[in-house]
Amino acid sequence: MPAVKTAFTPRTAGTARGGIDLGGTKIEAVVVDANSMVLGSARRPTPTGGGPNDVAAELVRALTAACAAAGLKPEALSGVGVGSPGIVDAATGAVSSARNLPGWDGTFGLGSALTAALGTRVLVGNDVQVATEGEFMLGSGKSYGSLLGVFWGTGVGGGLILDGKPWVGRGGAGEIGHTVVKLGGRRCPCGRRGCVEAYAGRGAMEARARKRVKKGAKTDLFKLMEEKGHTRLTSAIWARALERRDKLANKIIDQAVAALGAGIASAVNLLDVEAVVIGGGLGVRFGEPFAMRIAAEMQPHLFNDTRPPAIRVAALGDLGGAIGAALLAQAGRS
Amino acid sequence: MPAVKTAFTPRTAGTARGGIDLGGTKIEAVVVDANSMVLGSARRPTPTGGGPNDVAAELVRALTAACAAAGLKPEALSGVGVGSPGIVDAATGAVSSARNLPGWDGTFGLGSALTAALGTRVLVGNDVQVATEGEFMLGSGKSYGSLLGVFWGTGVGGGLILDGKPWVGRGGAGEIGHTVVKLGGRRCPCGRRGCVEAYAGRGAMEARARKRVKKGAKTDLFKLMEEKGHTRLTSAIWARALERRDKLANKIIDQAVAALGAGIASAVNLLDVEAVVIGGGLGVRFGEPFAMRIAAEMQPHLFNDTRPPAIRVAALGDLGGAIGAALLAQAGRS
Repeated sequence: MPAVKTAFTPRTAGTARGGIDLGGTKIEAVVVDANSMVLGSARRPTPTGGGPNDVAAELVRALTAACAAAGLKPEALSGVGVGSPGIVDAATGAVSSARNLPGWDGTFGLGSALTAALGTRVLVGNDVQVATEGEFMLGSGKSYGSLLGVFWGTGVGGGLILDGKPWVGRGGAGEIGHTVVKLGGRRCPCGRRGCVEAYAGRGAMEARARKRVKKGAKTDLFKLMEEKGHTRLTSAIWARALERRDKLANKIIDQAVAALGAGIASAVNLLDVEAVVIGGGLGVRFGEPFAMRIAAEMQPHLFNDTRPPAIRVAALGDLGGAIGAALLAQAGRS
Repeated sequence: MPAVKTAFTPRTAGTARGGIDLGGTKIEAVVVDANSMVLGSARRPTPTGGGPNDVAAELVRALTAACAAAGLKPEALSGVGVGSPGIVDAATGAVSSARNLPGWDGTFGLGSALTAALGTRVLVGNDVQVATEGEFMLGSGKSYGSLLGVFWGTGVGGGLILDGKPWVGRGGAGEIGHTVVKLGGRRCPCGRRGCVEAYAGRGAMEARARKRVKKGAKTDLFKLMEEKGHTRLTSAIWARALERRDKLANKIIDQAVAALGAGIASAVNLLDVEAVVIGGGLGVRFGEPFAMRIAAEMQPHLFNDTRPPAIRVAALGDLGGAIGAALLAQAGRS
């Protein structure tokens, strides 16, 4: 959505909120109005070196750019929400063990650093959980009281809404990517075996493809990657390879969909939620046809197979994480 | 606990409640006082022929016998709760598809039939869910705000307490026995493949043992069964075979514990509950040493492995299902 600079009025300034989605490869920032409509947005790459202070500085730049696009100054925002990886202490805004960010093995006071730099209060939440809440409040999950959000990207993350409220357990709930679907199965990037993410995470899928190529398998995946000038197999490259009926890509994706189907079905057998929302880089890129394939793979594993949950693609798209993060700064929330 | 016939007073009569656990092999009935202390109990075998009306008649006999043991008449009870298998409509007391009960493929108004026969209001709940609530309110789960109950017996059932309240989803939650732990794995009694119950349900374990014996495997399991005059491998027989270091029994139990460990760990990764309570015939019989073995098998699959949940054996033992069912009839509950 293009920035609506002319929308600036004193009323907007008082109720506009910021949202930042801090990902392993990119930072998305938005400024939204009271109705969560996007007034401006900006994107920056996540630093690959340095440490938490450098990452925080990039978040400030991204949000300042989104504010500029909206014709606002950061201090005019009523608040900013951040969706962060790692272990988030929502009460203090501290983030620990964000291992896909540079130099972030320890704990860093992200909330307080950003509050000082931006001149407005900053609240921090778990990235996947805020994206799930975004879909629940504003996106594909709007008409349901309980849902499981599955974010299918570099890893496989999950978020839960039960009885209309987020469920985070002791702070670490939602790890559907680490549901064991094959005892003694493939090694997962997390170090364990047989997790959903070992088959369905884009990182694991790429590692699998590289391994198979080393053993002589034929594929266009890496040719497509080089043509695009990338060093990683992005969602777009996987999509392109599938269109070209690349055999290896097809096989790896089939295994990913089978693992997702079994893992999500197990979660549904346990929780009996009304809906499952599929998001993330691959989930959004592959869209409705793949949501239907995942539903088909779930079906044989569903215990109550006559009433499967609704399966929906995340509606907020690439900005969903940032729009969901902005909900953290809504009035009436602590 | 022995019946306390002398405890009868008009005050007890007004506050005493009945509880019935309707199982596939036996019916347990209790009468409890306002503090859930057992005043009397009775057990009868579940009918193997006939239909829902015959099962209901046996429930009436079991509860009447428990009342007699407590020195009360059924109509003096403030209410009766029933834990039932199948799909339970808690609002109406109707039970559908209780396939381990004779002639119960359809729907039967169990609550209204029992209310008419017993002369007091009867409420019906899911058997595993009421047993979980019993452990939460009165047993091993008392000090936790969230827990997963795992009932390891003929099948593997589960119940959830989240934020101090039962979570039943759309009415079918808790099916941890049908978590897929091995894609393409062993056939489950439910007809699906690779479920926890395919490895850990006593029914599936016995089928596995019979199959292995047919193929020439040596075991004392069936000799022990005949010595005891049984036609099924009961929990006691499995326990005895393990004491004797029976190789086949050991191997089947190892696989059961591995499947339980992976399935429960996956549930904990998703929900991050504070505690797991292990009950059911095998769970209670095997007790603390096996709860520790399950915890050890969970450990390598836990995503947040530095703070595993507490693992506890169900404290209410064999009467837990009936005592939990009696909670349904507590004042203040609908």
